[in-house]
Amino acid sequence: MRIDNLQYAKWSEKIFRQMQTGGMDAVHVTIAYHENFRETVLNIEQWNRWFENYPELIMMGKWASDVDVAKSTNRTAIFFGLQNPSPIEDDIGLIEILHTLGVRFMQLTYNNQSLLATGCYESHDTGITRMGRQVISEMNRVGLVVDMSHSADRSTIEAAELSERPITITHANPHSWAPALRNKKDDVIRAVVQNGGMFGFSLYPHHLKDKSNCTLQSFCEMVARLVDKFGVEHFGIGSDLCQDQPDNVVEWMRVGRWSKDIDYGEGSALNPGFPDAPEWFCDNTDFINIESGLQSTGMSPEEVSSIMGGNWYRFYKNNFVGR
Amino acid sequence: MRIDNLQYAKWSEKIFRQMQTGGMDAVHVTIAYHENFRETVLNIEQWNRWFENYPELIMMGKWASDVDVAKSTNRTAIFFGLQNPSPIEDDIGLIEILHTLGVRFMQLTYNNQSLLATGCYESHDTGITRMGRQVISEMNRVGLVVDMSHSADRSTIEAAELSERPITITHANPHSWAPALRNKKDDVIRAVVQNGGMFGFSLYPHHLKDKSNCTLQSFCEMVARLVDKFGVEHFGIGSDLCQDQPDNVVEWMRVGRWSKDIDYGEGSALNPGFPDAPEWFCDNTDFINIESGLQSTGMSPEEVSSIMGGNWYRFYKNNFVGR
Repeated sequence: MRIDNLQYAKWSEKIFRQMQTGGMDAVHVTIAYHENFRETVLNIEQWNRWFENYPELIMMGKWASDVDVAKSTNRTAIFFGLQNPSPIEDDIGLIEILHTLGVRFMQLTYNNQSLLATGCYESHDTGITRMGRQVISEMNRVGLVVDMSHSADRSTIEAAELSERPITITHANPHSWAPALRNKKDDVIRAVVQNGGMFGFSLYPHHLKDKSNCTLQSFCEMVARLVDKFGVEHFGIGSDLCQDQPDNVVEWMRVGRWSKDIDYGEGSALNPGFPDAPEWFCDNTDFINIESGLQSTGMSPEEVSSIMGGNWYRFYKNNFVGR
Repeated sequence: MRIDNLQYAKWSEKIFRQMQTGGMDAVHVTIAYHENFRETVLNIEQWNRWFENYPELIMMGKWASDVDVAKSTNRTAIFFGLQNPSPIEDDIGLIEILHTLGVRFMQLTYNNQSLLATGCYESHDTGITRMGRQVISEMNRVGLVVDMSHSADRSTIEAAELSERPITITHANPHSWAPALRNKKDDVIRAVVQNGGMFGFSLYPHHLKDKSNCTLQSFCEMVARLVDKFGVEHFGIGSDLCQDQPDNVVEWMRVGRWSKDIDYGEGSALNPGFPDAPEWFCDNTDFINIESGLQSTGMSPEEVSSIMGGNWYRFYKNNFVGR
């Protein structure tokens, strides 16, 4: 089983074929950053066209069993997620609507303060808001998974405590290895995994030690250390692969429509665009490199296999509940 | 099996209990007349609240098998339908989105010319439009059933011919029995049923001979005659029950936002509101009267049973296809 629990590539037949070549059984794709509800629906419509046009490569994923179907038919099951709660606007009823349309993960914040919680770029973290509590409860009810990858520490810890179901950090790395604002301190990771939550390792260069020059060995040894500390069953991959995207897309991610000024996020004025991928992870055919790298750290085949997909599969099975 | 394939009541616990008392296994409910997409989603959100609040009385219906589940648990399966294509706006991609949200019937027009076809109140019927052809094809693809109850004759006949799947007139009566603009001439009924389509008999007083004073016997004899002419397998009930609605709702149905002037539709300035129901059909507990009335015409128990629900059930089974 091979699952990547976060990508936002510039989707194309080429990339869907690379998923097939790479043996990807499931990929969780971001369908909205700053979109409102109607714009998110337009993005789902675009995915429906891709499902219609490439039925031999990809299929809609709604349940863990869809991963089995995809695997047995040599396709990739695509699961939808939101990196921001903007698609639910200020309407809690849209949570069930979006879940029915296939959305399975939603971040409570994307860097900034949202209606629900505080993002990791704010200077004051006030935790989960009044609406945020209601939203977590409704997400629990319908089976939409809370993702705190872009949230601030206190908000993340509170979400892990408030949620009756396990929550996730779908794409990040430990702060102790690469001290980016988006990477997570041990107490945050602990809060998520101790309640059965999942943590996905990111391959986005701004989240890597030495960024684009990060070595496969450094990455895999970091994974091995974290797994030793917290238990292998809580970890998987959430690569944050942004393959083929033009630089204006990273600007959309960072600024959306919330600012008239440019904000460089994890980049800088001198380095505003997408960073170069490390040479050992450029597309969906490169998961084999990570698998080999993890084996080289001395992990057992079972441990490597659980990180490459088995843990996410089990998480899907336990948490993508229907109503 | 007891199925009513069209209602638009002012939904309440009282009415859901009457559905249970009346032994309704499924009801197709209208969720939009003139609403745009976002407003239709709000109406679905309202239904989600009712499903959450009355789980012992009603459940969401998406497939024929849901009727079996409802029957075996003494509940009513609720199937969604649109009386106007306004919810898809001018976006063909919204057809699959609304189907995913549970919509199973869509009228191509509601009395007026739409983007897709001509309504029964227009003086010129130009048939299915360019977009209408595309929409019928997409509805066929995703499994959303075409309903021509409020369409003009030529448009209806063309839709029946263009559609690769059977179409419906969910709620109307024969024009020869009650010459309302909304009732259907034999060649229109024939076009629908000869391709496997279904025709639902309406109990809305403006569609009845002698309106509110129509007798049960007159209604049932009309049914028996039509069944003799076209074959019993094509007929069911689509009562158009508008129980407990205030008169401003009939105004919304008739005028929506398309006119600043009042339009009385099937009513008149002297009789602008909802007409009184015939005394033998006031709510969901009265289907037993129709069943008895049909038996009195000399139909076999099997024939009566097929009209009371068996035919709609078979139609659901054959036409509510998943993708």
